[in-house]
Amino acid sequence: MVTFDLIKILILTTLAFIIAFLLTPVLTHYLYKYKMGKSIRNTGATPVFSALHEHKVGTPTMGGILIWFTALILALLFFYLDYLFPGRSLGFLNFLTRSETILPLSCLIATALVGLADDFIDIHSQGKGGLRMKHRLLIYTAIAAIGAFWFYFKLGWDAFHLPFIGDVFIGWWYIPVFIFVIVSTAFSVNEIDGLDGLACGTLLASFAAFGAIALMQGKINLAALCGVIIGALLAFLWFNINPARFFMGDTGAMSLGVTLGIVAMLTNQALLLLVIGFLFVIESLSVILQMLSKKLRHGKKIFLSSPIHHHFQAIGWSEPKIVMRFWVVSGVTAVMGIIIFLLDKGV
Amino acid sequence: MVTFDLIKILILTTLAFIIAFLLTPVLTHYLYKYKMGKSIRNTGATPVFSALHEHKVGTPTMGGILIWFTALILALLFFYLDYLFPGRSLGFLNFLTRSETILPLSCLIATALVGLADDFIDIHSQGKGGLRMKHRLLIYTAIAAIGAFWFYFKLGWDAFHLPFIGDVFIGWWYIPVFIFVIVSTAFSVNEIDGLDGLACGTLLASFAAFGAIALMQGKINLAALCGVIIGALLAFLWFNINPARFFMGDTGAMSLGVTLGIVAMLTNQALLLLVIGFLFVIESLSVILQMLSKKLRHGKKIFLSSPIHHHFQAIGWSEPKIVMRFWVVSGVTAVMGIIIFLLDKGV
Repeated sequence: MVTFDLIKILILTTLAFIIAFLLTPVLTHYLYKYKMGKSIRNTGATPVFSALHEHKVGTPTMGGILIWFTALILALLFFYLDYLFPGRSLGFLNFLTRSETILPLSCLIATALVGLADDFIDIHSQGKGGLRMKHRLLIYTAIAAIGAFWFYFKLGWDAFHLPFIGDVFIGWWYIPVFIFVIVSTAFSVNEIDGLDGLACGTLLASFAAFGAIALMQGKINLAALCGVIIGALLAFLWFNINPARFFMGDTGAMSLGVTLGIVAMLTNQALLLLVIGFLFVIESLSVILQMLSKKLRHGKKIFLSSPIHHHFQAIGWSEPKIVMRFWVVSGVTAVMGIIIFLLDKGV
Repeated sequence: MVTFDLIKILILTTLAFIIAFLLTPVLTHYLYKYKMGKSIRNTGATPVFSALHEHKVGTPTMGGILIWFTALILALLFFYLDYLFPGRSLGFLNFLTRSETILPLSCLIATALVGLADDFIDIHSQGKGGLRMKHRLLIYTAIAAIGAFWFYFKLGWDAFHLPFIGDVFIGWWYIPVFIFVIVSTAFSVNEIDGLDGLACGTLLASFAAFGAIALMQGKINLAALCGVIIGALLAFLWFNINPARFFMGDTGAMSLGVTLGIVAMLTNQALLLLVIGFLFVIESLSVILQMLSKKLRHGKKIFLSSPIHHHFQAIGWSEPKIVMRFWVVSGVTAVMGIIIFLLDKGV
């Protein structure tokens, strides 16, 4: 059956790539028509950042629509086909199941819509930024809380896996832990979404790693959802490569971050996010350290600009060089994450 | 046992990355010290090509040493450990076996040494090029012939697999077919090795696909060899990213091309090279078509410059853009190749 499962996952991956690729001209047309251009924040507080990004003003954001819309189409299409012709035809490509994919897909769509609203406000605010940080944190925490309650009360999950130690039963602590994993992953992915192709490539590696883990756990439909996201990300990447035709926007980065966190919780391998999503961790840490340093050391900075990819830009690395090197790192950390998973699982 | 096999493969992949990464400063030091800079051919016959590449004169070639040297070290190290402490210690990482990896590894090293000599002659010929095409073809054909005889006489192989049809027994025709697969793959990979990171990334995808196929066929050590090559390629890529610190050279491109061809023959999936190595095919076709067009149409060209990646350069795509887009394509074709393999294998 492994062959069959793999075929299903890989065909869905390829279909997602093709559909997302075909949808791109339509999306591009409307993004440019309605001038959904990114306004680069320029408040005077971040001079290095502003100087590095002037030329990107006007490139449309919201390209992330491509990814979740493709996932939604494929999920509904094959669910419907499976419903109409059970056990026949292309219904075998249905990957929408209550136990594995309804929750991550719902959260993907929900956060994508929130992100879309945020992107929209951002564009029409003329550089004053979208939702305020406080509001965003609140909204994403609320969405994560719904997921947490679902896991804890509906599915009865309260175990958190520690590699090489085993499952630790943490009772209702499961809820705050769940929320923390989801929200921190989402904001970290959002931080890394600052250079053409950067978030996309690192997300690709992360979803590939967690897809492989889900597959090895027999969670075929969850692995298929990861495959669909990977296929759509590859198509998105084609157009997001420097110079990007559009950016992912919050509707892409936040929603995929949330989904990655949920996939990590569903596979009960949240700690592996520290390895597989090593770059996301580094990005967030660089922002936090920079902020602390500015506050505690009277405005002194640690990095020339944060998140850390802007630091490399400031010291003279070209944008594609940073992006490609980050891709290499994400590939290596993805492999290392899978190794830890396998060693932990036991020979 | 699948878990164990995967752990072995992935640990070897990671080790190869680390070792190749650590070896780089040493290699760079000597390449720059002895001025192993690439001489870009400038005969007047290819004006577009020459103009595009002037700035690359002086970047050392022969970086491919990193890859095969790492593979050699790891193979010998764990073979030795396994020999000293059979069944214990780190001997389980030994991937050198008569039936799977001796032949591809030997051919990797043999062609790498030929390539090294060729690179060396090229550097010291001041732009007049290395070995003449006729000589190169002869040498690589001879090496491929040794492999072909080994397969045909020693291993008794004479079946060529056609997807969805099955094994066709082709008798002594196996030998010319084998030679054709190896030599054409090698020269195609060499053609694609024209932009920073291009050959490296596309080879990564191809070796990953064939590694997965070898794994699914139970050829664990062959999959491990692919893993080692992938790990070393990732480290090489780090330094090969635009602007490259060094190029792969013939010692990398030709030897990895030969090895890829042999892996395809060992998995009996040579026709999948047309899908998984789609870009290599396109590259070679573009060269052949351009040459034919120039000859038959009184010097008229089809592409502004060939191989085709130079055409995209000539129409204004930036180097990283071409490279990244080719990577995306190679990822998609790798997935499609695996799908065909799985469908063919049967559910």
